[in-house]
Amino acid sequence: STYYTVRALRGPKEESSTTGKVSKRAKVNLNIKKDNPKVVDTCDIEEIGSKKVFCRCWRSKSFPYCDGSHTEHNKVTGDNVGPLIIKKGD
Amino acid sequence: STYYTVRALRGPKEESSTTGKVSKRAKVNLNIKKDNPKVVDTCDIEEIGSKKVFCRCWRSKSFPYCDGSHTEHNKVTGDNVGPLIIKKGD
Ligand code: FES
Ligand code: FES
Repeated sequence: STYYTVRALRGPKEESSTTGKVSKRAKVNLNIKKDNPKVVDTCDIEEIGSKKVFCRCWRSKSFPYCDGSHTEHNKVTGDNVGPLIIKKGD
Repeated sequence: STYYTVRALRGPKEESSTTGKVSKRAKVNLNIKKDNPKVVDTCDIEEIGSKKVFCRCWRSKSFPYCDGSHTEHNKVTGDNVGPLIIKKGD
């Protein structure tokens, strides 16, 4: 069959969402430190050196740093996310 | 009716996903600069001052900075995302 109930497709916390809005209630982070209730990373400016590239797609194998995985994520989902670059000078 | 086709719930790029894995193909960024094919932000260390808190949930009204919106996102979706903090010294 090609039919499924909406409840089966949504997670338990997503039931109040109206149909067609499933993605509005989706998780951003699928795999990183899922045992930690809130993944916050702190970086001292002294550690940056001349430049660091930080992941904001939550798909990097080198999280919290960007490893370029945003490219595949954007291609597969039609998304448009990219990293945060912290650098010295102009 | 409480039945919908999977195709109607998934976006056009999500059809190859198997049922129950809709969230694996979801966008991370729903609203920010959706006309930009890849949202990259660059910040000079000189702009940081003593501390800046950067959004990684893509729900902030002050993007690229965190405004605390990750809390509601985590509550609603069961996610565990949080910001990146860049700070001076220990
Ligand atoms: S790998 Fe996540 S932003 Fe580049
Ligand atoms: S508002 Fe997005 S991480 Fe805080």
